[in-house]
Amino acid sequence: MRTTNDILRAAKAAAPVLAAAGTEQKNAALHCMADALLAAEETILAANAEDLAAATDIREVMKDRLTLTPARIRGMADGIREAAALPDPVGITLSETTRPNGLRIEKRSVPMGVIGIIYESRPNVTSDAAVLAVKAGSAVVLRGGKEAYRSNAAVTAAMRAGLQAAGLPEDLVCLVEDTTRASSVEMMEAVGLIDLLIPRGGAGLIRAVTEHAKVPCIQTGTGICHIYVDKTADQEMALSVIENAKTSRPSVCNAEEVLLVHRDIAGEFLPKIARRLREDRAAAGKPVVELRLDARAAAIIDGTPAGPDDFDTEFLDYILAVGVVDDVQAAIAHIAAHSTGHSEAILTADDAAADDFVCRVDSAAVYVNASTRFTDGGEFGLGCEMGISTQKMHARGPMGLQELCSYKYVITGSGQIR
Amino acid sequence: MRTTNDILRAAKAAAPVLAAAGTEQKNAALHCMADALLAAEETILAANAEDLAAATDIREVMKDRLTLTPARIRGMADGIREAAALPDPVGITLSETTRPNGLRIEKRSVPMGVIGIIYESRPNVTSDAAVLAVKAGSAVVLRGGKEAYRSNAAVTAAMRAGLQAAGLPEDLVCLVEDTTRASSVEMMEAVGLIDLLIPRGGAGLIRAVTEHAKVPCIQTGTGICHIYVDKTADQEMALSVIENAKTSRPSVCNAEEVLLVHRDIAGEFLPKIARRLREDRAAAGKPVVELRLDARAAAIIDGTPAGPDDFDTEFLDYILAVGVVDDVQAAIAHIAAHSTGHSEAILTADDAAADDFVCRVDSAAVYVNASTRFTDGGEFGLGCEMGISTQKMHARGPMGLQELCSYKYVITGSGQIR
Repeated sequence: MRTTNDILRAAKAAAPVLAAAGTEQKNAALHCMADALLAAEETILAANAEDLAAATDIREVMKDRLTLTPARIRGMADGIREAAALPDPVGITLSETTRPNGLRIEKRSVPMGVIGIIYESRPNVTSDAAVLAVKAGSAVVLRGGKEAYRSNAAVTAAMRAGLQAAGLPEDLVCLVEDTTRASSVEMMEAVGLIDLLIPRGGAGLIRAVTEHAKVPCIQTGTGICHIYVDKTADQEMALSVIENAKTSRPSVCNAEEVLLVHRDIAGEFLPKIARRLREDRAAAGKPVVELRLDARAAAIIDGTPAGPDDFDTEFLDYILAVGVVDDVQAAIAHIAAHSTGHSEAILTADDAAADDFVCRVDSAAVYVNASTRFTDGGEFGLGCEMGISTQKMHARGPMGLQELCSYKYVITGSGQIR
Repeated sequence: MRTTNDILRAAKAAAPVLAAAGTEQKNAALHCMADALLAAEETILAANAEDLAAATDIREVMKDRLTLTPARIRGMADGIREAAALPDPVGITLSETTRPNGLRIEKRSVPMGVIGIIYESRPNVTSDAAVLAVKAGSAVVLRGGKEAYRSNAAVTAAMRAGLQAAGLPEDLVCLVEDTTRASSVEMMEAVGLIDLLIPRGGAGLIRAVTEHAKVPCIQTGTGICHIYVDKTADQEMALSVIENAKTSRPSVCNAEEVLLVHRDIAGEFLPKIARRLREDRAAAGKPVVELRLDARAAAIIDGTPAGPDDFDTEFLDYILAVGVVDDVQAAIAHIAAHSTGHSEAILTADDAAADDFVCRVDSAAVYVNASTRFTDGGEFGLGCEMGISTQKMHARGPMGLQELCSYKYVITGSGQIR
């Protein structure tokens, strides 16, 4: 068994080879990795079966996340080929200037170096995350969940075989072998060995990493997303957007958790949205949304009275907190007090209200007349996504390949001195 | 006395007012701050005299850093007016796209929110750093050194008076009143109250902040800068560049600390550079540079034999470590093992060697045929500088106003759902 420190050092030693590789070599390596993954299908499925057999005490939804199938392995391979087809984010001239003294100063995108990823039970993250890091020119050290270790090891072995087939060091993709808490802590403290650490998982993991990491890290994830319906909103549009934002995939971070309605239309709109999310869905055989109401909303429609935490909870479920506010200013103030800075929307026909909302709501993605569900690398046209940042440093919102890169200044002169 | 937590909360409450202010209002406020600083000259000098009187046990060089004079206060006011004249970094459309579904997605620069700065003894940093933060639209919480507290408080009071005169909340600029270690720790752990923490000072401070901070922070500073003289270098140019990089201001982070010379020219070049840095400077009455030589250099010229740490030390003095390497690859490998990732230069007439060096040296600023001393916000044309980042996340190299900002996505639709 290699220690986590050995693995980090091996990745760091391998990284410069990839950083010096050209676009074609990187893309060829990605295709080799996809081929190797498909070739290893039986081995991977066997390893996954062992993980599943050992996972007797986990919930059914977790079991589903842990499960690999031939179709999912093909999906992983397709994801690798899609990454190969994306533009190379490395080596781009971000800006260039020539100074009065003749120095030419170029700001050029470069790889991060070594990217660490700590994630939970989905084995497909093993290839998805590794491949984006490699495409961005960085070595990657993966630390997955214990319950998926055999699957992750089999996927990693295939990707390493692909790298080797392409003439690149296999240590560009490493899986941490120690699945105790010690290895996570070691990664968080690996100053000089990890250039960027990304946690992917639940709120507990993300809080632990952002609080304890001594290496640069990105806070991803938690989304208490708000939709505010202004008094001028097109109410038919609002019904459709709210149902979409709440119910199209309630378990994800860009799903709506809180609905705020302008007081002038609350008496008209709240009964409509209640019908749409409850009676209409029940009639259509779809899961019904539980509404948790503040006092003003409860005076208009019936539902569960909101508890003290309901406006500060990421339900990730068919539950929606509903409040009535005096105006757009009150909505902005409510969001400032309760949001996680992920995604918020205003539905309005009033340009001034939209502009005010957009300027003053301090979140990664602020929408006018659209569902919060679009906060996603693919939907934003980034081509891929490594997670959604809710911090303001380095990357905010969906992180694509560009956000996995750094830059350097290249200065060319003819003997200039200062 | 306000607690550090009170101060942080006050700054956070004030920040949205500045974030919503327009360019003209911000610039008007900066001019008010400059006026107020000049108007408070006597008060500031009196406070500074008290600090100096109390500072009996500090070195002469530290005393000089601590001293304010009418000229230095004018310099601070001029700095504020220069910041006012710079382009506003906030509200810029960084990119814009319209997706096939009609959603318009704008990536727009926005203020960080609250910027924390922990610094050491120079009271001029109080205004320099605060003003850049304000120009970038953020509230700033300053935590200066104990020995400069009275001076910092007087400068801060003047800036707050200026903000008030301009109709902005004075809590946009706050000085931490507790100068014990506790307040630094409190800032490092102020999750949710500080959006970006920047340490400005010595290596010990920077290490403490990057290791203990739970809030996003930037590693600034330490520079073990290398110059490599290739076999094809113009040796006259090399003499001039090396003398400049080493001696023009040895106490700063972009000064050269290590000289590497290609073995083919070492026999010819080392005696020339030794004469230039020692005999010629002695004859001109200038401080002489002590050369610390590796074994191969010591076989050619005389000097101090390099000790085990001399190639890993930021001397900040008239001392230069000198080594002989086999070729550009060996120089790159040496730099990878010993550099702090700040600034390195190759002096060469060989384009292929220059290109190799520039691509493979993983530092914030990589030079071809110029002095490392140019790594500076002003010299790079950024107009100002908050410090020099040696990390790869968020900002690398000189940090100007743009690097003090974040961004958000503003998405405008017409009812799109996913």
